[in-house]
Amino acid sequence: MQEFSRHCKHPVTHLALSGGIGGAKLSLGLEHVIKSPKLMIAGNTGDDFRHLGLYISPDLDTLMYTLSGRSDPERGWGLANETWSFMDTIKEIGGETWFQLGDRDLATHVERTHRLNQGEKLSAITSMLCRKYKIEAQIIPATDDLLQTIVETNEGVLSFQHYFVRKQCKPTIISLKFNGSEKAKPCIGLEQVLNSSKLETIIICPSNPFLSIDPILSVKGIKEGLKKSRAKVIAVSPIVGGIAVKGPTANNLRDLGYPVSALAVAKYYSSFIDGFILDKRDEDDASRIESLGVKVCLEDTIMIDLKSKIRLARRVLDFSKSI
Amino acid sequence: MQEFSRHCKHPVTHLALSGGIGGAKLSLGLEHVIKSPKLMIAGNTGDDFRHLGLYISPDLDTLMYTLSGRSDPERGWGLANETWSFMDTIKEIGGETWFQLGDRDLATHVERTHRLNQGEKLSAITSMLCRKYKIEAQIIPATDDLLQTIVETNEGVLSFQHYFVRKQCKPTIISLKFNGSEKAKPCIGLEQVLNSSKLETIIICPSNPFLSIDPILSVKGIKEGLKKSRAKVIAVSPIVGGIAVKGPTANNLRDLGYPVSALAVAKYYSSFIDGFILDKRDEDDASRIESLGVKVCLEDTIMIDLKSKIRLARRVLDFSKSI
Repeated sequence: MQEFSRHCKHPVTHLALSGGIGGAKLSLGLEHVIKSPKLMIAGNTGDDFRHLGLYISPDLDTLMYTLSGRSDPERGWGLANETWSFMDTIKEIGGETWFQLGDRDLATHVERTHRLNQGEKLSAITSMLCRKYKIEAQIIPATDDLLQTIVETNEGVLSFQHYFVRKQCKPTIISLKFNGSEKAKPCIGLEQVLNSSKLETIIICPSNPFLSIDPILSVKGIKEGLKKSRAKVIAVSPIVGGIAVKGPTANNLRDLGYPVSALAVAKYYSSFIDGFILDKRDEDDASRIESLGVKVCLEDTIMIDLKSKIRLARRVLDFSKSI
Repeated sequence: MQEFSRHCKHPVTHLALSGGIGGAKLSLGLEHVIKSPKLMIAGNTGDDFRHLGLYISPDLDTLMYTLSGRSDPERGWGLANETWSFMDTIKEIGGETWFQLGDRDLATHVERTHRLNQGEKLSAITSMLCRKYKIEAQIIPATDDLLQTIVETNEGVLSFQHYFVRKQCKPTIISLKFNGSEKAKPCIGLEQVLNSSKLETIIICPSNPFLSIDPILSVKGIKEGLKKSRAKVIAVSPIVGGIAVKGPTANNLRDLGYPVSALAVAKYYSSFIDGFILDKRDEDDASRIESLGVKVCLEDTIMIDLKSKIRLARRVLDFSKSI
């Protein structure tokens, strides 16, 4: 009950829901501003999969590597100062090479898989890794239970990583399914936080609404928790200037029949958010978002460096207090 | 049935039983002389264990790495041009570090573990790895079944790697046990070869009699196969000048109540060998070994370079033909 004891000592005041790269950028800003376990970041686990027998959790890893200052700034995923001897050799012996695994990154996967196979929970393992990586915030998986994003596309039904990495998001999405979501429960620390009176703000990071945030919200009780919580729920737009900052968000909106706009994302979230951080470039959407009953805060949301991440994080917290 | 088809096309004429480093040296010499799948090398699997959830087979790996010219000449184990990013990171996250795993070496363990967990046999996986590594000889595990060397010592009962790596062979051995040996069967390719009329020579490599050769012989039918086979059985002494060339053989002889001598090893093997390659430095033992009914061949058995490995291998084959 690591999470529980940390939670008791430091009641969580801020909860972020996050996918990978974009969410991790804002989470890093939040970590710098809050600097304590009072910040909890619930990561998407719908992308998790077993590869070469290893349990890989791309979003939790991106969060951990980013918040510990170890992520590779060029690639956007994996660790800095990475080496690739393992992949070179896997290629030589005819193993699968479509998913890149760095030598340092492998330590996370091997240790985690070993512990999972011995019966430890993903949340406890993530908590242990965060301690080792000296991360002050609490990173947890949205759920310790099975949750698998399945992508129905014009090229057939694909597991998430097959769509995302192997097919490079090229197929057109028809629908999404989160296997296991009917049974999955929020992990224990997250459930406590959602019910806590100390929680002030819930931040929906600028992650992909369909591929990163929806899997989290598909876990029993999380969406309801957001609605019931006394905390302010603030979403940060993943759409800037009418396009996605990174990844397939724009294509996904189009595929699923939505306009590619910040407004469309705000509408999609409108039943459970109180505020929406809109990029200044999308100012035209502001009044229509407000007419949904959602407060709007205009801001430059592009996070090119640590300074801009911290600035956006502060803005999110100030905005939350103001509404 | 990879081994089977290879065996049919190239009936095995020479079978070597081998442990790790010493056995791999002679096996490399034999590979250079025979240059075909007519050479089969049955490796000890009593040292195999799971570490961090990965199935590790130290003797098979040493054989594969040595015969493919990839072994590290300095360390004596593992791969040349190895990198250590994985171990550095495992240390950082508090994982077990007493057993070193190089980044390239990890590819073997991850791929093998993955295939074993999917139900492939160790022999088939080893055969696939040998093809990828372009090894002409057939390296196979003595058995596909569970076999675990357990070492009863003055410091308690230890699994093999705990005795060998963690405790650096320092505890005194009281007795040895090979868990699973009552049920383990020779792997299918080995069983066929032992029964084959084409088999000319069986070579007991200069490996540790107790820790490397005995586990192989403990597998049901192998020792009997050696006795029944029409092939000549030739052992190469692991004792040179009254001491062990490498590893704990001398200490093991002493612990188990034997004199530390080539004669003691020849005696230990005498019920199933036809000939014994004795190092010239131990010439004094020759007549006493011959009085056991075992032919003796004197030779410089120290294998310092490829040339001396090939020379010793030729000598073994010539000696076998001569008796």
